[in-house]
Amino acid sequence: MSGHLTGVGVGPGDPELLTLKGLRALREADVVFVPVGDTGEVGRAERTVLAYLEPEGVRRLLFALSGDEAAQRRNWREAAREVAAALREGKTCAFATIGDPNVYSTFTYLVRAVREELPEAGVSTVPGITAMQDLASRSGMVLLEGDERLALLPFTAGEEPLRRALGEFETVVCYKGGSRLPGVLGVAEEAGRLDGAVYGSRLGIEGEEVLPAREAAGREGAYLSTVIFGKGRA
Amino acid sequence: MSGHLTGVGVGPGDPELLTLKGLRALREADVVFVPVGDTGEVGRAERTVLAYLEPEGVRRLLFALSGDEAAQRRNWREAAREVAAALREGKTCAFATIGDPNVYSTFTYLVRAVREELPEAGVSTVPGITAMQDLASRSGMVLLEGDERLALLPFTAGEEPLRRALGEFETVVCYKGGSRLPGVLGVAEEAGRLDGAVYGSRLGIEGEEVLPAREAAGREGAYLSTVIFGKGRA
Repeated sequence: MSGHLTGVGVGPGDPELLTLKGLRALREADVVFVPVGDTGEVGRAERTVLAYLEPEGVRRLLFALSGDEAAQRRNWREAAREVAAALREGKTCAFATIGDPNVYSTFTYLVRAVREELPEAGVSTVPGITAMQDLASRSGMVLLEGDERLALLPFTAGEEPLRRALGEFETVVCYKGGSRLPGVLGVAEEAGRLDGAVYGSRLGIEGEEVLPAREAAGREGAYLSTVIFGKGRA
Repeated sequence: MSGHLTGVGVGPGDPELLTLKGLRALREADVVFVPVGDTGEVGRAERTVLAYLEPEGVRRLLFALSGDEAAQRRNWREAAREVAAALREGKTCAFATIGDPNVYSTFTYLVRAVREELPEAGVSTVPGITAMQDLASRSGMVLLEGDERLALLPFTAGEEPLRRALGEFETVVCYKGGSRLPGVLGVAEEAGRLDGAVYGSRLGIEGEEVLPAREAAGREGAYLSTVIFGKGRA
């Protein structure tokens, strides 16, 4: 009889944006896993977890953030083996992930890798506040009202999908601009959607930036940045 | 010197999906306003609030859900006057709203009406879990991974926008199907997107329904229903 794995969305950075259900899942778990990058820096998920739990019950899983796919695959496999071992012991496991575990989350990949080790693993998730929602709140931007529509896409999907979305949707949210932020903003400028757009990074943690997207135009975006193109209705 | 108004997203129904920040905002408020429909039924937002607060500090604002626009406007104005009066007394006010206060929320309309009474009113929001996220979690559906894109739209935007979204986006979320649910599912069937789609209503509360969208095809949807069209990857 194997244990159970819960992916807990801990929100974008502010520990208070954790849900009560997420907090309970973390507290009731025998083991809480957190992802760490290969820089050794304490990650955002871990910071939120450590705001509520003692470090003894927290186990770090190493994931490479670099582009080295072989290293990434090796990390996934090793992480999955560690989680699967705990599940085989019948342990209740939680994996803390920033944002929501079903929205661009490492949890999706972890589950896939764990199921290769332990196909019968029981898995569930607890939703978490996404960066899009936090940026809307911090910048005073209403995301949607009435009959409006929203498109959420990563800039890694390419310029053309962003262009089409900007041409059709009242609100467009672009993640993962990263070093390509100038490209994102250039497409928006062409589409006449740069005014009123907001840029955010490191939401809720030290070094937070929330500013008009136009002011972010000259810089390289943070790895986890968010741009919301709205109509400045708020 | 006027008080401050915070829109608190209390999530889709399950009181545990409230964030810790939302809980603090509710507890610290001098007055907590909750919307109620004209049926007198305790609303979802109120139920979550009453899971944590004594009823004495909670004030109900009447909003007509019916199609009578004149009655609706009258209700908004009366609600705004009540909130503005509390703000003029320097009170810290919270307004509890289901889901997220920046996503199809009554809070947006309330703020607009309050500002007509009291233009200098200070306003902020605390994000909340949306029905889309809760349904993804409860149905085991991954909303987004890698370079995928998501479109979120209300069916009240019409059939054609839904058709275009289904033709372009990996994940499409449709709100407010209501009595037009058969229309939503008909468009999806034509687009070959009905398989793997999930339908949800009354998430986290009594009478919850989470089922394959195909099984919901014969019925009239609930007023607050959600359909997620994905690719059945989870």
